[in-house]
Amino acid sequence: MEILKWQRQDHSLQKITKTHPQAPLFDADELTKWSFYRALIAEFIATLLFLYITVLTVIGYKSQIDGNSDPCGGVGILGIAWAFGGMIFVLVYCTAGISGGHINPAVTFGLFLARKVSLIRAVMYMVAQCLGAICGVGLVKAFQKSLYTRYNGGANVLADGYSTGTGLGAEIIGTFVLVYTVFSATDPKRSARDSHVPVLAPLPIGFAVFMVHLATIPITGTGINPARSFGAAVIYNNAKAWDDQWIFWVGPFIGAAIAAFLPPIHLESRSCKGSWVIQEQPG
Amino acid sequence: MEILKWQRQDHSLQKITKTHPQAPLFDADELTKWSFYRALIAEFIATLLFLYITVLTVIGYKSQIDGNSDPCGGVGILGIAWAFGGMIFVLVYCTAGISGGHINPAVTFGLFLARKVSLIRAVMYMVAQCLGAICGVGLVKAFQKSLYTRYNGGANVLADGYSTGTGLGAEIIGTFVLVYTVFSATDPKRSARDSHVPVLAPLPIGFAVFMVHLATIPITGTGINPARSFGAAVIYNNAKAWDDQWIFWVGPFIGAAIAAFLPPIHLESRSCKGSWVIQEQPG
Amino acid sequence: MEILKWQRQDHSLQKITKTHPQAPLFDADELTKWSFYRALIAEFIATLLFLYITVLTVIGYKSQIDGNSDPCGGVGILGIAWAFGGMIFVLVYCTAGISGGHINPAVTFGLFLARKVSLIRAVMYMVAQCLGAICGVGLVKAFQKSLYTRYNGGANVLADGYSTGTGLGAEIIGTFVLVYTVFSATDPKRSARDSHVPVLAPLPIGFAVFMVHLATIPITGTGINPARSFGAAVIYNNAKAWDDQWIFWVGPFIGAAIAAFLPPIHLESRSCKGSWVIQEQPG
Amino acid sequence: MEILKWQRQDHSLQKITKTHPQAPLFDADELTKWSFYRALIAEFIATLLFLYITVLTVIGYKSQIDGNSDPCGGVGILGIAWAFGGMIFVLVYCTAGISGGHINPAVTFGLFLARKVSLIRAVMYMVAQCLGAICGVGLVKAFQKSLYTRYNGGANVLADGYSTGTGLGAEIIGTFVLVYTVFSATDPKRSARDSHVPVLAPLPIGFAVFMVHLATIPITGTGINPARSFGAAVIYNNAKAWDDQWIFWVGPFIGAAIAAFLPPIHLESRSCKGSWVIQEQPG
Repeated sequence: MEILKWQRQDHSLQKITKTHPQAPLFDADELTKWSFYRALIAEFIATLLFLYITVLTVIGYKSQIDGNSDPCGGVGILGIAWAFGGMIFVLVYCTAGISGGHINPAVTFGLFLARKVSLIRAVMYMVAQCLGAICGVGLVKAFQKSLYTRYNGGANVLADGYSTGTGLGAEIIGTFVLVYTVFSATDPKRSARDSHVPVLAPLPIGFAVFMVHLATIPITGTGINPARSFGAAVIYNNAKAWDDQWIFWVGPFIGAAIAAFLPPIHLESRSCKGSWVIQEQPG
Repeated sequence: MEILKWQRQDHSLQKITKTHPQAPLFDADELTKWSFYRALIAEFIATLLFLYITVLTVIGYKSQIDGNSDPCGGVGILGIAWAFGGMIFVLVYCTAGISGGHINPAVTFGLFLARKVSLIRAVMYMVAQCLGAICGVGLVKAFQKSLYTRYNGGANVLADGYSTGTGLGAEIIGTFVLVYTVFSATDPKRSARDSHVPVLAPLPIGFAVFMVHLATIPITGTGINPARSFGAAVIYNNAKAWDDQWIFWVGPFIGAAIAAFLPPIHLESRSCKGSWVIQEQPG
Repeated sequence: MEILKWQRQDHSLQKITKTHPQAPLFDADELTKWSFYRALIAEFIATLLFLYITVLTVIGYKSQIDGNSDPCGGVGILGIAWAFGGMIFVLVYCTAGISGGHINPAVTFGLFLARKVSLIRAVMYMVAQCLGAICGVGLVKAFQKSLYTRYNGGANVLADGYSTGTGLGAEIIGTFVLVYTVFSATDPKRSARDSHVPVLAPLPIGFAVFMVHLATIPITGTGINPARSFGAAVIYNNAKAWDDQWIFWVGPFIGAAIAAFLPPIHLESRSCKGSWVIQEQPG
Repeated sequence: MEILKWQRQDHSLQKITKTHPQAPLFDADELTKWSFYRALIAEFIATLLFLYITVLTVIGYKSQIDGNSDPCGGVGILGIAWAFGGMIFVLVYCTAGISGGHINPAVTFGLFLARKVSLIRAVMYMVAQCLGAICGVGLVKAFQKSLYTRYNGGANVLADGYSTGTGLGAEIIGTFVLVYTVFSATDPKRSARDSHVPVLAPLPIGFAVFMVHLATIPITGTGINPARSFGAAVIYNNAKAWDDQWIFWVGPFIGAAIAAFLPPIHLESRSCKGSWVIQEQPG
């Protein structure tokens, strides 16, 4: 019986070590595998659906409050925030097992810095995400061209009255909240301890996106996802959207980097006296 | 010990193979089983309750914003979207173990194309769903006839200013999001790997319905469920609702078909390097 | 190994049989146990907190839309529906292990009819719930007497323009949705199959309450909980509230009774061909 | 086989006993461990992010309803309540394994009274939380100074027309709801029985915060978290905010104390006849 116990112990440790090695920087081998291309397709489709649903919600809301007899008929900023957060919940849930469910270059960048994905995979994911975002926004424009143009196409721009520094800061902290949640939810040591964590992770991740949108829609429209900002800018193709575009790449990448370099501090927790969460003692 | 391990492995593989064979096209045997009729009753009751609650919410909202001292007192489009998504969450949770919790002919059609249900079961489910939907909307009309007629009875029609192509496209993509989530959440390989998936599946499925409603209520009122559109049309019995009815059958069925033929691409994932989700390595 | 497997099988069957016998009609033995009184205290506190939070939300909303410069500042009917549904989620989660988390005489009545609780327990629970509700609403009145009286104290009455039959029907179906969800979520056969069901049950139960409120607040204010309606009527003590009171007892009890007598049909499912939920085959 | 069973039984009992001893009042040993300081950092960061997101939401909402063409564009009180509740869900999820996820001096105080954390840990947590709150609100002010000052900086004050007693009572009961949920969700006996409880606990805890905000925002703006009230008061530095500050310390601490001394009554439940939750019978 002791052996069985030891074996289980050992097995779970092996599982951690085996399935979570540091990803190599370059891994040419990946390119020969079908699962790699399937992951790219999943990232492409997920980002396409993400932009399609969310930009449609933004446009529909603006068209409704404008010249409508019912000033409160629209979904409001609360509804828009739900659209972004809820779609991330659904799509991370759907694609987690196929591509890891990034759907966001900033998340991919953070996981690359933490050596969870190789450079080649990170770059290809970002390309797939940006293409998906362009197609998703393009679909909205194809469906309702006049409304799309009239209501700014869901593009991210700095709102009037806010400085560049404020916008950049909002994007940095917002992305930090998201990527910090991704890392916390997917800490391999935590997952090994409790197998439900991965299944439940999409919900807090989606909520993190929801929360950040509630807080920063008035400032930048909330990017925290360079593919989302890029896809909207490409299709809307407006000078202001392109001028501010850098904020929605630099901000999220800095936020993701901070979250990626924090794990040595916040993860690796094995037991904690103040915690009311029961933690199995290994060994 | 090795034997035990191998047996477990083998057992779980058997479970997949045994419980998820391809459903036969015709299965006369089903018709002799009580569980088949119980499943039909469950689909009927669930679709009835779904339409009753959601159409009542739509009517109540419209009656409140119309001639009320409080223009913002109603639940808004956000509340209507919650009613549809939340009821699907509750009802899929309740009926998943009895009928599979389809509550939607498009979902049944997708699962039929994927050979998860037989033709006879698929047809009978759709009949039960449509009858349930008619009774659900009929109940609302019986309760508040004048309000029901004044506020269009929750029928799905193409909104002014949108082309037929846009409406059809919105229904196709919306249903795709829903059925894609159903397939992802219920991938048998994923379920075998992690037994919590089935229990948690109703939540992302309900959220997918919620999201699609947020995005497409301004365009078609959001069908993505032919039984819902059909039931409302039968009771409202309005020329416009009947003229547009085909959109709410053709669109959802195309969307479900696309989702059904995608699984060879997006499912069957066993391990994925880029994924932060821990996956047990078989063998 | 076969023995081990059989033993597990057998054990789980025993568990069902042992822990879910039919409750005796009278069980004088219960009265001698501390756990019985602890359960009563839990029902009392939970119903008190339920009424306190929800009635405060209703009053606060009405005071805000009335004579406020911001017509949309209040939480709206959507917020009120969230208050009722969300509190049930939280309180069922908190008290499920102590009293079973009824917090509602209609739920207690349904479980009594299904012989899950004895007559003495059912009666005592209802008394505790009604006392808790009275204290909860009393607390709100004590805190803000003028607002409480001006805004009708959260009492359930039939809205103008609705017939008694409509109100009664709305209460019957609404309570049916709730108690049907309670039975589905807590089917012992389902629970034995999957141990996560009980832990997750409070969420769909809370959502069922949320959904019913979205749909029927315009009709009756939504009772579906006789203790809630009774507590509000006692403290508000208004003729109209007392005249309509019977609707909020007869309706919920009929709805609960229908749900209680349905289980022989909808539960007891062991395997289902059309289901995409993996079910372990016993034996 | 009996031995195996007994061993498992025994192991789980040991786990309870070992990992949940009463915390010593003073534990100088803690101060020498890295995990203690990591916990402090986690509490600091979590409270910082909590205040940053929520105060930004409050400010953004007020700026939008003020002088905007769309009176209903803001997130409303419902959105503000979601921001507070949702962030607690996300942050408790993220930090539960590191610091226990208190993020609130009242929660720390309750767990200290229940002897779950030592005095030194409790005091240091509160300091970290207050510093984090100050930095979080400071960040909001640094980002948008003019809006911050114009819209009262998210400070908690007693609303006009409410007595001090009402405000204090609202804070006491609101905090009681939160800390009662924390204790219920984290009852070690419940957790030992069902390993999913800890993973799922953040959701009802977040919902409890959401509910209390829906109910008491009109009265005090809702504190139920002394660090949140203190941080906002320090940065806003307004006489009224300081005058009322004591309410937001005394109220929450009394509420937490009541919840802490209730457990001997409401927890320790092992089996309950009226419960529909399956409970494994030990032995």
